[in-house]
Amino acid sequence: MTVIDKKQPTDRLQDNLNQVQRLIERQRLVEDLVHRQDMPKHDLVESLVHKQNLVELEHKLESLHPADIAYILEALPLDDRLLVWDLVDSEDEGEILLEVSDAVRESLIESMEQHELVAAAEQLDADDLADLAPDLPRQVVYEVMGGLDEEERQQLQSALSYEEGQVGALMDYELVKIRPDVSCEVVLRYLRRFDELPSQTDKIFVVDEDGVLKGVLPVRRLLVCDPERLVEEVMATEVVSFHPDEDAADAALAFERYDLVTAPVVDEHGVLVGRLTVDEMVDVIREESETEALNLAGLKEEEDLFAPVIDSVKNRWAWLAINLCTAFVASRVIGAFEGSIERLVALAALMPIVAGIGGNSGNQTITMIVRALAMGQLQPGQAQRLWRKELGVSVINGLVWGSALGVLAWLLYGNFSLGLVMLAATTLNLMLAASMGVLIPTMMERFGKDPAVGSSVLITACTDSGGFFIFLGLASLFLL
Amino acid sequence: MTVIDKKQPTDRLQDNLNQVQRLIERQRLVEDLVHRQDMPKHDLVESLVHKQNLVELEHKLESLHPADIAYILEALPLDDRLLVWDLVDSEDEGEILLEVSDAVRESLIESMEQHELVAAAEQLDADDLADLAPDLPRQVVYEVMGGLDEEERQQLQSALSYEEGQVGALMDYELVKIRPDVSCEVVLRYLRRFDELPSQTDKIFVVDEDGVLKGVLPVRRLLVCDPERLVEEVMATEVVSFHPDEDAADAALAFERYDLVTAPVVDEHGVLVGRLTVDEMVDVIREESETEALNLAGLKEEEDLFAPVIDSVKNRWAWLAINLCTAFVASRVIGAFEGSIERLVALAALMPIVAGIGGNSGNQTITMIVRALAMGQLQPGQAQRLWRKELGVSVINGLVWGSALGVLAWLLYGNFSLGLVMLAATTLNLMLAASMGVLIPTMMERFGKDPAVGSSVLITACTDSGGFFIFLGLASLFLL
Repeated sequence: MTVIDKKQPTDRLQDNLNQVQRLIERQRLVEDLVHRQDMPKHDLVESLVHKQNLVELEHKLESLHPADIAYILEALPLDDRLLVWDLVDSEDEGEILLEVSDAVRESLIESMEQHELVAAAEQLDADDLADLAPDLPRQVVYEVMGGLDEEERQQLQSALSYEEGQVGALMDYELVKIRPDVSCEVVLRYLRRFDELPSQTDKIFVVDEDGVLKGVLPVRRLLVCDPERLVEEVMATEVVSFHPDEDAADAALAFERYDLVTAPVVDEHGVLVGRLTVDEMVDVIREESETEALNLAGLKEEEDLFAPVIDSVKNRWAWLAINLCTAFVASRVIGAFEGSIERLVALAALMPIVAGIGGNSGNQTITMIVRALAMGQLQPGQAQRLWRKELGVSVINGLVWGSALGVLAWLLYGNFSLGLVMLAATTLNLMLAASMGVLIPTMMERFGKDPAVGSSVLITACTDSGGFFIFLGLASLFLL
Repeated sequence: MTVIDKKQPTDRLQDNLNQVQRLIERQRLVEDLVHRQDMPKHDLVESLVHKQNLVELEHKLESLHPADIAYILEALPLDDRLLVWDLVDSEDEGEILLEVSDAVRESLIESMEQHELVAAAEQLDADDLADLAPDLPRQVVYEVMGGLDEEERQQLQSALSYEEGQVGALMDYELVKIRPDVSCEVVLRYLRRFDELPSQTDKIFVVDEDGVLKGVLPVRRLLVCDPERLVEEVMATEVVSFHPDEDAADAALAFERYDLVTAPVVDEHGVLVGRLTVDEMVDVIREESETEALNLAGLKEEEDLFAPVIDSVKNRWAWLAINLCTAFVASRVIGAFEGSIERLVALAALMPIVAGIGGNSGNQTITMIVRALAMGQLQPGQAQRLWRKELGVSVINGLVWGSALGVLAWLLYGNFSLGLVMLAATTLNLMLAASMGVLIPTMMERFGKDPAVGSSVLITACTDSGGFFIFLGLASLFLL
């Protein structure tokens, strides 16, 4: 009887990691012992124990899926990670390098000799090799290329010619093609000649003698249809297909929308050149949302949790610098009103509230709009309509919260006019936030920039400086 | 010859939307005309033109995939949306309701009569019905339930018994099951009796007489194997399976990791109860990242771009209130140092810089850690190690940027000690940000809260109040 592992995948991952960590700990202990008490007579025993741990670890790793090993490598600190990496079966190394995050991949590649890298890369298909190539030393790529046959080399060169984020860089070449004028019976016999069909195969591509895509034959239709019927009678002719130079994020949206598993990629003449699979699209979706989250938080790229301090400093440098510049501008705005603050010091305590609520509200607006732009739901002509709506929201919020703040300020400082200024400044800053929240992303979109990158920083800069200016300006006009 | 639409899906979506919008505009124009010049003799002509536009629109809609109609509905303002919705083929209504965002779904359901809702819901499978049920009036759900057969009713009740975010709420019941002791030939013949296999079918589930899952037969293996062989010889027995009460986000991670298209769901006895498909998992991934982005920006839930102002105010209310409370605390911290600010007004201009850089840096740390926790890469025992690393990063950043700020302050205000206080305060606030950035998410995780929700607000509250306190406190101690 065959036993199926009924563990939930997440628990299993955790178990694997714990086992590996226990083995590493034991190994470290032994190493420590050997190091401390260098009595020669213990040598043999200890080197045996030493060995035994490593062998056990190696066995454990052999039993794991490359994706599981990738998970473990990402969760381990650098020294432990390299210990595990040394024990990984070299046949799996290529695939694992593809699975790990960019930051961890870099740390692993750095630790490898050139011939190890060549051996790992040689295990991969052309499209996977193309994904890995940018991270490999150039010499390694040349050497691996030399070992490819003509077709694979062409595929690799084609894949490398597309930019990251284009469909062409993500497509693979594992195509099962058939002609429209054969019977389903013939197709079934043809398929039986394969050792195994490409992963994720849910449809077979129907092409004419020039390789032009004519339709697709879904496997779930092939399996139920009368074997006598011709492919062209059974195939689907309404096909969602992509071009290699199309944006991968758009392709991912189409996969989501039409629940696709695979889709053909055709060139400008309609010739089938590759296919996209849903697993690549899932990665695109995940990466896209991650990049957004990282950029919003001011991180340049994904970071290895256990990266050396200096790498982290570099990764976070750029956005901290931008933040400092905008903060400096806001500080100069305050500086211009130092006279007012000297005369009414309550202003210093109240001004961050006005700036803060503006920033929060502006970020709400901008997040909604960036999302609508990314999903293609916002038409250029509708910006004005949205702006009116956002202004309405901000006026209501401004009056409600501004009144609350005004009353608080009045009670705290016993100054009714100060409360009125608080109310007016809050409302005006929220209106500024709403306007900039609509304007910034739509302008960025119009000028061909990604509205997700930096929008949050820009809006905060506006609402900080703007908030200080509005509040201190009104106070100077009406209170002093 | 069959023609395949070679348009890129995104362009096609846009074209569809533009066409619909043109038709609506024309329609509005006609309505306007009819309204303004109520000359009776024009009646006939105008009602013809009137009709013609609507018929054209209806035809256009009929040619579209439900997901495409959903896209159009989301991109249209409310009045136009309802006009289109009235023209949609009632057979598609159920599926479209599933495709649109929560906010838009609500607006559509509100516009429908009870019998229309029942008709729409009746078109759906049990699992889809369960997704829609929480948004439907209770009376409608009862009525639809009455029309189901025993099996479907049980499926619906089972699906409804799971919470959103559990595997059980996402699984469907379109299972193709076979026995292990039959030949592949028999399986192929059995499959031919279906009209069509369930969508996304990439594997067939192998169960024993008690319904216990024994393995899976991947279709891509079935198609290439010798028809004489038995299923149990060909099937895969290492199966990634899920439990109905498991977390859907974990399942989505497993789909990503192992490149799954479908996966079996089994109960505690190993009995096959349903299946998960990758299209549902893609939605989980997208939704998860969206919720994160929305929460970070202080939006409670997804918002209909064209929602009435009052709905938007409600959606944004909660986080603005929280933000105001934390801003108020920060303001009181400043209030406690009003005496110092009165004596050295430069402090008022410089303090937001210290608070701001702390907030930015803390958000960098927290984003990284929240992400690592969500992906299961961070072990509880490693928090301390990470904390030391983050402290290291913050000390370096603090010294570098603090010195820059210190020099600026010195030059601006001609006060060297003020520069030194600036340097010290920046460094200390970055260290506070690093510590809280590690502490907050790990504590939330330990107490079973989702570390993504509210982390950003909490860290900003700490670095604002903390930054003001540190800077103004140091200044009071050393400068005055």
